[in-house]
Amino acid sequence: MLRTNTCGELSINNVGEEVMLSGWVQRNRDLGGMTFIDLRDRDGITQLAFNMDENSNLCEQARKLGREFVIKVRGIVIERSSKNKNISTGEIEIKVSDLDILNPSKVPPFTIEDQTDGGDELRMKYRYLDIRRNPIKENLILRARVSSETRKYLDKQGFCEIETPYLIKSTPEGARDFIVPSRMNEGQFYALPQSPQTFKQLLMVAGMDKYYQIVKCFRDEDLRADRQPEFTQIDCEMSFVDQEEILNTFEGLTRHLLKEVKGVELNEFPRITYDEAMKMYGSDKPDIRFGMKFVELNYICKEKNFQVFDSAELVVGINVKGGATFSRKQIDKLTDFVKTPQVGAKGLVYCKCNEDGSFKSSVDKFFTQEDLNNWADTCKASSGDLILILAGEKDKTRKALSSLRLHLAEELGLRNPEEFSPVWVLDFPLLEWDEESNRYHAMHHPFTSPKPEDIEKLNTDPASVRANAYDLVLNGNEIGGGSIRIHNRDLQKLMFKHLGFSDEDAKEQFGFLMEAFEYGAPPHGGVAFGFDRLCAIMGGQENIRDFIAFPKNNSGRDVMIDSPSIIDNEQLNELNIKLK
Amino acid sequence: MLRTNTCGELSINNVGEEVMLSGWVQRNRDLGGMTFIDLRDRDGITQLAFNMDENSNLCEQARKLGREFVIKVRGIVIERSSKNKNISTGEIEIKVSDLDILNPSKVPPFTIEDQTDGGDELRMKYRYLDIRRNPIKENLILRARVSSETRKYLDKQGFCEIETPYLIKSTPEGARDFIVPSRMNEGQFYALPQSPQTFKQLLMVAGMDKYYQIVKCFRDEDLRADRQPEFTQIDCEMSFVDQEEILNTFEGLTRHLLKEVKGVELNEFPRITYDEAMKMYGSDKPDIRFGMKFVELNYICKEKNFQVFDSAELVVGINVKGGATFSRKQIDKLTDFVKTPQVGAKGLVYCKCNEDGSFKSSVDKFFTQEDLNNWADTCKASSGDLILILAGEKDKTRKALSSLRLHLAEELGLRNPEEFSPVWVLDFPLLEWDEESNRYHAMHHPFTSPKPEDIEKLNTDPASVRANAYDLVLNGNEIGGGSIRIHNRDLQKLMFKHLGFSDEDAKEQFGFLMEAFEYGAPPHGGVAFGFDRLCAIMGGQENIRDFIAFPKNNSGRDVMIDSPSIIDNEQLNELNIKLK
Repeated sequence: MLRTNTCGELSINNVGEEVMLSGWVQRNRDLGGMTFIDLRDRDGITQLAFNMDENSNLCEQARKLGREFVIKVRGIVIERSSKNKNISTGEIEIKVSDLDILNPSKVPPFTIEDQTDGGDELRMKYRYLDIRRNPIKENLILRARVSSETRKYLDKQGFCEIETPYLIKSTPEGARDFIVPSRMNEGQFYALPQSPQTFKQLLMVAGMDKYYQIVKCFRDEDLRADRQPEFTQIDCEMSFVDQEEILNTFEGLTRHLLKEVKGVELNEFPRITYDEAMKMYGSDKPDIRFGMKFVELNYICKEKNFQVFDSAELVVGINVKGGATFSRKQIDKLTDFVKTPQVGAKGLVYCKCNEDGSFKSSVDKFFTQEDLNNWADTCKASSGDLILILAGEKDKTRKALSSLRLHLAEELGLRNPEEFSPVWVLDFPLLEWDEESNRYHAMHHPFTSPKPEDIEKLNTDPASVRANAYDLVLNGNEIGGGSIRIHNRDLQKLMFKHLGFSDEDAKEQFGFLMEAFEYGAPPHGGVAFGFDRLCAIMGGQENIRDFIAFPKNNSGRDVMIDSPSIIDNEQLNELNIKLK
Repeated sequence: MLRTNTCGELSINNVGEEVMLSGWVQRNRDLGGMTFIDLRDRDGITQLAFNMDENSNLCEQARKLGREFVIKVRGIVIERSSKNKNISTGEIEIKVSDLDILNPSKVPPFTIEDQTDGGDELRMKYRYLDIRRNPIKENLILRARVSSETRKYLDKQGFCEIETPYLIKSTPEGARDFIVPSRMNEGQFYALPQSPQTFKQLLMVAGMDKYYQIVKCFRDEDLRADRQPEFTQIDCEMSFVDQEEILNTFEGLTRHLLKEVKGVELNEFPRITYDEAMKMYGSDKPDIRFGMKFVELNYICKEKNFQVFDSAELVVGINVKGGATFSRKQIDKLTDFVKTPQVGAKGLVYCKCNEDGSFKSSVDKFFTQEDLNNWADTCKASSGDLILILAGEKDKTRKALSSLRLHLAEELGLRNPEEFSPVWVLDFPLLEWDEESNRYHAMHHPFTSPKPEDIEKLNTDPASVRANAYDLVLNGNEIGGGSIRIHNRDLQKLMFKHLGFSDEDAKEQFGFLMEAFEYGAPPHGGVAFGFDRLCAIMGGQENIRDFIAFPKNNSGRDVMIDSPSIIDNEQLNELNIKLK
């Protein structure tokens, strides 16, 4: 036996007990007569005490223990003289009688502390040391809890966990697939799933009623900080349901998770349509932890000879509460921000609502105090507030103002990571125009059903057709999305036609699904949550990497195991492929 | 809304309620005045009643519904006149007032019944219809329950579920990898994991203490009925434990699963060593639901001028209780069986213990009644029993007798699928000689620790070195196995040397693990359960395929989605590979 307790378990109630602990040397303090060691394991830290007077041999041994040595000790739990109220074991220490070194350690390449001196690359190379640090360890434990609570909730709701295959078929539609050469089927390839979409729909055709899976998915895309070539989804599908039942079920899941994992009780989630979201926030994933909703000003800003507004498709502003105190320099910085290529605005108009009731704007030449007062009324701005206005082409202007809104919120500390504001965004467009391929693409995926009342517009005005599709947004991040699917073969055929699939393409790629729909497919719909991001947001962060045990870098490399790597020619031969 | 209840929910307590049900038409019986439909969903079957006199229109509609049509009905729950005690809803039926066809269905290619007329290939091609059948559906539900109960137990024991990566590094050791070309790293490849072995060990180095995962693994091997290119493992690892604690933990898991899922309470699991298992059962995965233990007869069978026995390394028998009644023909068939190439014995010696106390053997020429009496005593055979004996080279003879033992048990109905007999097999050899490569291979894997007292024999008698390795066997199937790992770099180096790895090979393949061991690796060990097989055995079957939602056939093909398949040249170009 290597321990009777973990390093986070013992308290004042155990005083007098003989215990055995194993763990890592976190800290070693030699105070002359006494040596204290902080012994660490997953559960916590327990202080070990060695007394020079009582056992000089053992104390000498203890003094030599380096950081991260793995040791086993036996001793008696005693009350500490100077207590540490910050940790659960802070009232006791172990008076050690036996000490074994289980494994020595080289000096780690960075400090195993909450704030480490290791840079990103080094931490990734030695990820097994990085995970010893509290923040990363806690992230992984949080992830396990989210996973466990997700299953508990879904099991209780009658969902059945079913594993779908990883070696599937490549489909050109959507993102790029990772592929896997088949040795037994010469010249042929499997693909790794981008999602279990078709399989979960087939499970509904199969009568499994309510399915879920927490499952790895794969996309061979160029990577960004919040994207990984392999990522995890909570994947769900339900039969014989309408949109309302799906929203309620997964609102319930999200509420359950935040309550059980974070202790946060949420009210009913607000719902807005995609059109409203774009109009009020310039984004289909609005952060509603704070205000600054968009106010459209076209009808009161135009025809005052200010060319910028007069020529604009949209003039739109936000009210920055208390922003009248911003200095000229601060406002210049905001102007610089909106002019960066990423944001892409031409300029920024401001209007300060002074304490004395007067207004000061960057366009005083064109607008009277009465005009500005009118702006303020429309924007519900009062003394001390600041109105910021952008103008131009509608979609671009909204996008730019959305960036400004988030930027300001960040600067003003309005994005509290411990506050959770979910919102459903409904009625997404069914199709979006793709400039590159010069055709419509499915905004969600080709199996999403159009709203019945919009179907006839597929021929006349495809862009205006709304889908039975919904996203769940949390703190400005899309954490989940889904749709009611098409379960009718004819409608699915029509969709493929509008997506530019030839009959052959559709048959080649989705023939089995189309055929399945002929054997009694039930009405069904579902949702998928981005599990990595959900965990990150619940952990109060936006970067998913530190919520994944062994992530890859932006080149898709695992720098710890040094992968991908070259392969024996013999291996390639067996697979009937060669390098180009 | 599409339903108020499922088709398995309503009972006599709901009589008088108005309900809405949706599901599939299982059966349609037109009795003239009445038409009855069995409506099926995942939860069960509910009878729908249509009365010609009361609503001829509706009844006409109902009559036309084909098998597997998806319908929605509204109606009143009424008590049935002729009750069906076999199903939970058998006391009621629905007097239907409204009927909607949600989706029609073509006639399915096989019957959706417990016993179907569909062959294997057809069932696989239309797996989504096959899953509608009760036996397959129940298998998948059982699998979900085993998974859920596994997590419950491990969560409670303080295990943390951690996902390890799927895109990892190829290692030539072990079985053949599936590989994945990297687009972003030209000429390089990922591999899909054969198991998360190294990652789980790194998680122990990382201080995560107790890890588990229910995870897909991949092996590109030629397939057999009970093998799939992708399969699922319950993968676990623990730190600061000895073998005893691991055995207790996973004995606890197995007991928990059988109790919660099957309602079977198991006693403490017996334990035998590998050597004992080979000696008593000729197999390292003995089925101990029945007896017929091996009895070695060398010392009483030799030197009687029977050349077959005299020249044999091993003479070994089993006692078939009550087998004296076997006819000559039956015994001839057994002889034929042991002579098949798969079994490979030269012949079979029998000795019947007659009711009158005399003996009749196939070798009466060489052995007296006293000799045979001696055999019977040694085999604990009494009147009415049959002793069957094989002789020859030790390992081959044991293997052959093991086959005979299982064959007999099958024929005698001793392998009751609803009886569960687990056994731990301990002290596996560390190494096994591989004729082909002319060197020792790790029997378990290269990270398995030798028993400390055997380490010095690595140089003198490698084959006799025992490992801290163990298998859990259930009903003659290995359902789990594991080991205490090496956590010391020097010992790991020594192991690699004995396995014929050059320093470069070891560094190239496992350098990161070796390096990790230098930074304070804790003592650790673990286990992996073959999840597919565990589910199959718990479901009373041995073939895993019907416990996997979408399995592949023996050529590694998914005949439903027709995968693997050919790939666009463009896609191959991007990946910098081409076909040979």
